[in-house]
Amino acid sequence: MEPNFDFDALYRLLRENKLSTLRDELAERNVVDIADFMQELSNEEAAVVFRILPKDISADVFSYLDPDSQSHIVSMITDSELSSLLDDLFLDDTVDFLEEVPANVVTRVLANADPETRALINRFLQYPDNSAGSIMTIEMVQLHDRLTAAEAIDRIRASGSDDETVYTAYCIDNARHLVGTLPLHRLLFAQADALVRDLMDDDQQLIFVTTMEDEETVADLARKYDLLSVPVVDNEKRLVGVITIDDIVDVIEEKNTEDFEKMALMHPSGTGNEYLKTGVFRLAGNRIVWLLILMISGTFTGKIIENYQSMLSVVVGLTASIPMLMDTGGNSGSQTSTLIIRGLALGEITIRDYFRVLFKELRVALICGTILATVNFLRLLIFGGSTLPVYLVICAALFCAVLSAKCIGCTLPILAKLIHLDPALMAGPMITTIVDALTLAIYFALAHAFLL
Amino acid sequence: MEPNFDFDALYRLLRENKLSTLRDELAERNVVDIADFMQELSNEEAAVVFRILPKDISADVFSYLDPDSQSHIVSMITDSELSSLLDDLFLDDTVDFLEEVPANVVTRVLANADPETRALINRFLQYPDNSAGSIMTIEMVQLHDRLTAAEAIDRIRASGSDDETVYTAYCIDNARHLVGTLPLHRLLFAQADALVRDLMDDDQQLIFVTTMEDEETVADLARKYDLLSVPVVDNEKRLVGVITIDDIVDVIEEKNTEDFEKMALMHPSGTGNEYLKTGVFRLAGNRIVWLLILMISGTFTGKIIENYQSMLSVVVGLTASIPMLMDTGGNSGSQTSTLIIRGLALGEITIRDYFRVLFKELRVALICGTILATVNFLRLLIFGGSTLPVYLVICAALFCAVLSAKCIGCTLPILAKLIHLDPALMAGPMITTIVDALTLAIYFALAHAFLL
Repeated sequence: MEPNFDFDALYRLLRENKLSTLRDELAERNVVDIADFMQELSNEEAAVVFRILPKDISADVFSYLDPDSQSHIVSMITDSELSSLLDDLFLDDTVDFLEEVPANVVTRVLANADPETRALINRFLQYPDNSAGSIMTIEMVQLHDRLTAAEAIDRIRASGSDDETVYTAYCIDNARHLVGTLPLHRLLFAQADALVRDLMDDDQQLIFVTTMEDEETVADLARKYDLLSVPVVDNEKRLVGVITIDDIVDVIEEKNTEDFEKMALMHPSGTGNEYLKTGVFRLAGNRIVWLLILMISGTFTGKIIENYQSMLSVVVGLTASIPMLMDTGGNSGSQTSTLIIRGLALGEITIRDYFRVLFKELRVALICGTILATVNFLRLLIFGGSTLPVYLVICAALFCAVLSAKCIGCTLPILAKLIHLDPALMAGPMITTIVDALTLAIYFALAHAFLL
Repeated sequence: MEPNFDFDALYRLLRENKLSTLRDELAERNVVDIADFMQELSNEEAAVVFRILPKDISADVFSYLDPDSQSHIVSMITDSELSSLLDDLFLDDTVDFLEEVPANVVTRVLANADPETRALINRFLQYPDNSAGSIMTIEMVQLHDRLTAAEAIDRIRASGSDDETVYTAYCIDNARHLVGTLPLHRLLFAQADALVRDLMDDDQQLIFVTTMEDEETVADLARKYDLLSVPVVDNEKRLVGVITIDDIVDVIEEKNTEDFEKMALMHPSGTGNEYLKTGVFRLAGNRIVWLLILMISGTFTGKIIENYQSMLSVVVGLTASIPMLMDTGGNSGSQTSTLIIRGLALGEITIRDYFRVLFKELRVALICGTILATVNFLRLLIFGGSTLPVYLVICAALFCAVLSAKCIGCTLPILAKLIHLDPALMAGPMITTIVDALTLAIYFALAHAFLL
């Protein structure tokens, strides 16, 4: 059940200029829904709504707007409103926003941030895309490991309770090195004089990443160990930030989207841009390279056909089966490669499983190939229009195509992984090309041997 | 940085029967790694390790084992050990495990559970697969909304701190209706005499699902609103459980895996079974249906070719381009359909965006089609082996194929959504078939018109 949100009623309040009623209504609503609401409005209306939002939620709402709306809001508020907004935003949300908006907006935002925030923002903007540093937040609960539980609770209480990651405290030593993690509920239920260092999970259990770590590694760790947050340290293992599960879920979805794009033979768009907001030239650019490569590699299959052109003219029924053979080979191969690529991505399959995988795929191929060849043979007998030897050659070629497609479909992704290439990016196009050529080569070789 | 885990050293301790040292070492390790370790061992060794695990982590370790290992452990421990294990397991983990193991194991587990747990397990086993009820846990912090903050903290402290979802308390009224949620840190920092009902998020903000809700809806809600957990209610809106983010992440990954499988033209395996643990016949069964359907639909393309067989024999160079045209058309179509299906799944694209999407794809198709046709024309001029009119027909057909493939690729998924079919399941196979047939029809029509 989603939160109750009556768009029309709220819009009526806005149109009738009943702003204080609207403000009271919005104060009760979820910030995600308020952001959705504002994105349906004109820029002027959105700015009006943003101005009347209660101060304790306006920064939150802002962080859920898309970059376009954020830019417009920023261009329509005063410098002092902007400074106040920057004070309330979590630093990671500020950085997310700055990474997507035009340079003049960035300049104005930096000019209105206080010097400390400005320095932090600049540091964040230098972390590479897709690094742990670029998605971490610095708002977190840090506890010195020599505090008692009572002192720690006082410390947290004094620091304000607004931290994104308040369900886990990160424990540091004198040199700010990360030494442990402490779930807040354990602190809450501990003896008042128990020491943080005795309560915390330390040493062997400590899971963390450095700022330069790939964000996908962070997501893999969080998924494997069911973590709600992952602490981030610098090269000296000093605690500098934390990555929370909501950002980790975004990384997982983005990674999956990229894998879908690779499977469908596109350069991944990478930035997590939504389809509707991506420009036409960008979309075309992401797609054209693989289309060109595969079109040109289609030359090979074309050459194979040219070589056997005279045989195709002589033996009736051979040409008509070319599309069926190529499609079935291609589909068989991509079924296998998809499962293997996915299994590799989720860590369910590793390189050393290769022979188990190959053996399994061979057996699956025997089953599928036999069924397909049999059904196709019956189809040809009934609807064919050619001769029995031709049918037998077609079905034998079909069987061989399925068998080789499945073997190639499981070998190439694991080979890619072995030589440290991205299986999703490399396997798809190569499998198509190789399976196409191989299928035709087998087909024509069989036809040449038995029909001429 | 993953937790430190020296497999070989620990295995040496096991082989040398230094069990108390091993026990001390394991006590310091992450439960996920201990489970990984046990799955590398023989069944007998795993049972030994399980027996020496400290009691406070053994149930946790058990919940991370795969169903095979779980069954073996259960078969090797005594009834009283089993009862004690069931006491320590979270109910959702018990149910997950029972859903995957043989019937005789289920019987023995139920016989050794106390009557209350048995009743609960039976109720859980009745929730449909993939429903919210089937993935929820009943271990949660419930607070009466009339308690004060101090009373609430005492209540939580008394109940023990082991709850999976202890970072959010769920607030109920006299009739156990869910009336609000309260982040634990807010409770911690509240005035002692503040009432839970005044502290909690209520009414408009309340996000919850019923037991019968689809688990994917739960995942969509959690992703949209950045939730760490989603409360589950019965038909009378009484609180019955909660779904935590770790299970939600699993649902997201499972859904993505299913979408990958559908894209690669397979029946999704559905249960989240790992590839290596899925039987050969099951794998073949998931794949053979679409292979058969597409093979048979390949008959249409075959018929089209048969009709123009005489033309293909006469005009040199036409046949050789068939694979290239079909591949490029198919790839163009699947690029588009993948982006649209993904956008629909993530809620970035809705049905009413259709004309925007179509217009965008048309422009992308114009760019891609022009580039592809031009490059191919140059390729044919250099490497061709046929005549200029043939080249022109091939390139015109290529351009039309890209254009129609992109239109079909965006129209079919949205059409599927409109008539409440699964875009991922329905669009892939139909797009392949339609684009293949259309591409050849255009090609031969052009050839017939201009070359004969």
